Amino acid sequence: MATEMSRVILDQLVSGIAPVEEGWRRQACVHLDTLTKPIGSLGRLEDLAAQIVAIRRERVADSFRKAVYVFAADHGITEEGVSAYPRAVTHQMVLNFLSEGAAINVLARLHRAALHVVDVGVDADLEQAPGLLHHKVRRGSRNMLQEAAMSEEELAQAMSVGATLGEEAAAAGYSLLAIGEMGIGNTTSASAITCALTGASAAIATGRGTGLESEAHARKVRIVEAIVAKHCGAPSSAIEILRCVGGLEIAAMTGMVLAAARHRIVVVADGFISTAAVALAAAMEPNVLGYLIAGHRSEEPGHRLLLDHLGLTPVLDLGMRLGEGTGAVLAMPILESAISLYNGMATFAAAGVSEAAQ
Amino acid sequence: MATEMSRVILDQLVSGIAPVEEGWRRQACVHLDTLTKPIGSLGRLEDLAAQIVAIRRERVADSFRKAVYVFAADHGITEEGVSAYPRAVTHQMVLNFLSEGAAINVLARLHRAALHVVDVGVDADLEQAPGLLHHKVRRGSRNMLQEAAMSEEELAQAMSVGATLGEEAAAAGYSLLAIGEMGIGNTTSASAITCALTGASAAIATGRGTGLESEAHARKVRIVEAIVAKHCGAPSSAIEILRCVGGLEIAAMTGMVLAAARHRIVVVADGFISTAAVALAAAMEPNVLGYLIAGHRSEEPGHRLLLDHLGLTPVLDLGMRLGEGTGAVLAMPILESAISLYNGMATFAAAGVSEAAQ
Repeated sequence: MATEMSRVILDQLVSGIAPVEEGWRRQACVHLDTLTKPIGSLGRLEDLAAQIVAIRRERVADSFRKAVYVFAADHGITEEGVSAYPRAVTHQMVLNFLSEGAAINVLARLHRAALHVVDVGVDADLEQAPGLLHHKVRRGSRNMLQEAAMSEEELAQAMSVGATLGEEAAAAGYSLLAIGEMGIGNTTSASAITCALTGASAAIATGRGTGLESEAHARKVRIVEAIVAKHCGAPSSAIEILRCVGGLEIAAMTGMVLAAARHRIVVVADGFISTAAVALAAAMEPNVLGYLIAGHRSEEPGHRLLLDHLGLTPVLDLGMRLGEGTGAVLAMPILESAISLYNGMATFAAAGVSEAAQ
Repeated sequence: MATEMSRVILDQLVSGIAPVEEGWRRQACVHLDTLTKPIGSLGRLEDLAAQIVAIRRERVADSFRKAVYVFAADHGITEEGVSAYPRAVTHQMVLNFLSEGAAINVLARLHRAALHVVDVGVDADLEQAPGLLHHKVRRGSRNMLQEAAMSEEELAQAMSVGATLGEEAAAAGYSLLAIGEMGIGNTTSASAITCALTGASAAIATGRGTGLESEAHARKVRIVEAIVAKHCGAPSSAIEILRCVGGLEIAAMTGMVLAAARHRIVVVADGFISTAAVALAAAMEPNVLGYLIAGHRSEEPGHRLLLDHLGLTPVLDLGMRLGEGTGAVLAMPILESAISLYNGMATFAAAGVSEAAQ
């Protein structure tokens, strides 16, 4: 059960999130049927265009102002040996982001999305690191096998980091946000969140993360089971699930998604961890769902469970499992294609093309 | 059986097509494993990068020189009422391409692919149309229910149109080609080709095209059955299948694919008709297969059969069924992403990131 403090935080974060505008969606669908193509022949691109129009409630410009936020944090649970990589890799990869060498740097550059890297809980001294957004709440979350991943204060602080950045993103005029992360150990959190939200067993919701072998994977399943049993025995509120089995970067992502929805920004979820954060936001405020696009389906088995739970069909399905926001940014040219087609195609009437006989 | 003339044409078109270079592919895979990401975590993007390196046999530049060729022709079989749209739409859509109003115009512009529209057999006087490549062989193919779709001379001429344009594309420095088409009635050809190549029944290989209702669809299935029974009763060579149940634009596409493979150009197939052309090229010369990427999977049921037959996994699966090269061009930013990641990511050693413990 959420305590009084959690409830106060939550009330602020979810306030003012309106549903997307179904009237605009219907108008968009009418327009799509006037364009010089067989009805429905652009498939998912038509759904995406209509959803984006319903989100933005305006004639949408061809090119979005795009950004990807990568939230980085460490996880106390890595003490239990749940990852193929040492904890130090979170820190090392943050430095890699800052020196432009990671996959997300390449994709953000190629697809012209501004990249923002946020330290919300990396277990390293990064105060002097240039170009980093400094919002460290704590040097990693707590070990979920022993205690809740975050105290109430830590949760509130981490969610506020994301919410504040979401407000800033809106003020900066971004219309399309990808939500990414880096945090060794965070698939363990995402698996536990998946179990808590969907009722799936740990065995089904737990994957190999960055590449665990069979024995280490079996160990990870047992750890997720134990975490879920400890914290999520009784039906829990989304905010308590987040506090007990989440992570600092996951809480920040959840906060950002709520703020983005308030400002009618299109939110593209990335892989398993990003989608766990997005699913928590949707559980806190169901109106959030209309603002969400699943960028891709990752190889993590729990990701499929979360996407089904949310009723989201991913744009891409390329067997990726990297995180960092890579799958979300990769989907951006497809979303831009959808809007460009919506805006740029001629109508049957204007082009003098005959319509279907039937 | 191919006649002497067919064999002479074919020998010329398939000559000099070498297999892609497996040594380069292996080297590419070794390089991919040094990059700062868990092994294999970029999924299909890694396969695509390695395939492109194996095709190009060189350090591939980040940005391709891209083009999409849209081959347009009419089909004699439209006399039998196999399409939801009147035959005149082929002509009307060519004019729409030339005035920049069609879906392929929007996508080619957005993704910076040069668009070339080729009249290889439209049943209209287009000689004065500016911007069109004029290579009309005949005002539409012949009615396949009555006779072969093309005479030997017409087939040779149509294939040469594509082959010559393929040579010109290589000379112009294009490294990535999308193969698209426009031709009312051409899913009927593609279905018949699918039956002939894969042994599938007409009922399985025949879809709704641009949007047939149930009764018209049942009629189309019977027509495809009759066409296949008439022309493809005995095992036929790919070139005879193409001549009897193909179309002028399909023959041109097949010719272009063969020329592109000879010049080590990456060929992106589009939907059902484009893939039928590509499958015929691969049947004529199996080395072609290594140069092919399936841009997307269309909603046409026969497309799935052809992709399985070729062993190709599509990059995108967005429920599209438009043709024009749209699905192929839409896949281009994904291919560029794959190569940019391959070229641009830091290695573990250079970035000082720890590798996996296992």
